[in-house]
Amino acid sequence: MLTLHHHPMSAASRFIRLVLGEYGERVELVEERPWQRRQEFLALNPAATLPVLVEDNGPAIVGGTVAAEYLDETRGAFQRERRLLAEKPGERAEIRRLTEWFLGKMDGEVTRYLVRERVFKLEMRAEEGGGPPDASAIRAARLNLKNHMRYVGWLAESRNWLSGTRLSYADLAAAAAVSILDYLGEVAWDEEPLAKEWYMRMKSRPSFRPFLAERVRGIPPVAHYGELDF
Amino acid sequence: MLTLHHHPMSAASRFIRLVLGEYGERVELVEERPWQRRQEFLALNPAATLPVLVEDNGPAIVGGTVAAEYLDETRGAFQRERRLLAEKPGERAEIRRLTEWFLGKMDGEVTRYLVRERVFKLEMRAEEGGGPPDASAIRAARLNLKNHMRYVGWLAESRNWLSGTRLSYADLAAAAAVSILDYLGEVAWDEEPLAKEWYMRMKSRPSFRPFLAERVRGIPPVAHYGELDF
Repeated sequence: MLTLHHHPMSAASRFIRLVLGEYGERVELVEERPWQRRQEFLALNPAATLPVLVEDNGPAIVGGTVAAEYLDETRGAFQRERRLLAEKPGERAEIRRLTEWFLGKMDGEVTRYLVRERVFKLEMRAEEGGGPPDASAIRAARLNLKNHMRYVGWLAESRNWLSGTRLSYADLAAAAAVSILDYLGEVAWDEEPLAKEWYMRMKSRPSFRPFLAERVRGIPPVAHYGELDF
Repeated sequence: MLTLHHHPMSAASRFIRLVLGEYGERVELVEERPWQRRQEFLALNPAATLPVLVEDNGPAIVGGTVAAEYLDETRGAFQRERRLLAEKPGERAEIRRLTEWFLGKMDGEVTRYLVRERVFKLEMRAEEGGGPPDASAIRAARLNLKNHMRYVGWLAESRNWLSGTRLSYADLAAAAAVSILDYLGEVAWDEEPLAKEWYMRMKSRPSFRPFLAERVRGIPPVAHYGELDF
């Protein structure tokens, strides 16, 4: 039995949900608000970051990239052509580079800021860091987002999937981040038609379906969010 | 032939040098100043982060954790009891969690700030971000360092090595970060005797030796830096 501590607006959490969906694994979801520093959650992960995966009563598997490695070792390795991490070390390194790009670099430059300012601050109490959104942080993140979407478009142009010829963790990591930004209406799809074409393919996968119906309290998604052809 | 693009004050770079040292691999070092955004370096890694590992004329292996996975797959897997990543998925997840802790979380809360304010800013031109150190950033990083050293002490108390019974990537990642902070005289060793005992063991390993003789231009190390018993 797999349990995932997650938040719907955490890109790394969505990434692991996509991986589990692709591998046909059932998972019990526990929603966490990391800023509340719940004791039982801190005992699982003193860094208070998401996601945290637990299998049966095993040790906590902490973080998106660490959980993805665990799932490759315990599931992916037996999936043959549906494996989401390549076989060759050089190709695996490229998939991991891009996964880190979308869950690390893009998260630190775009996703985390926009989610914090536009979503989490509404729910946080003042002593947890709540309050009005910081307009300059939002502006900087939006500017960075343009570069990241250009990079997605460039990858989609040069390759069939973002890391090469096959669907991989790189696509799932990118789609996880982009789906959150799309929910918030932050993506200028007209500017990046190739990124849009790639994202439509991602959106139509069964693993993606749960996201399309998911709603964040108090924040309705952009009008086209649930549409496969937008 | 392995080539590592690195900087002596980059914890992730030192981490990979330690891994290579433990596995007895020779490597050619190329020192990079990422803030200069050298074209050939950006072509290897558009994120302009360190380290970048290149084997023969293969693709760039970007980042400390990605390079560590590559080295596990191409070297570690054949090392038997000297392998630095465990065999069991659950144990591998714990080693990876701690590696990310020291190269990700600690870097973002401590190491990167102190290095930037105390080392890089001296070398940077004004338009690259150079200038006088930011006293409040230094203060915040020093406060965070106390918590991280307490965590190292706690791990060293509860386990033989930081992730369990055997030397692993977790120890090398922690030692890489700590060695930089120790060079800068930032570690209050008296406060954490168990962390000190662990670090003395790390320092006496042959893989560590190159660091003890290394000097950063314009910044002499703290007096005890090169001593194995300090």
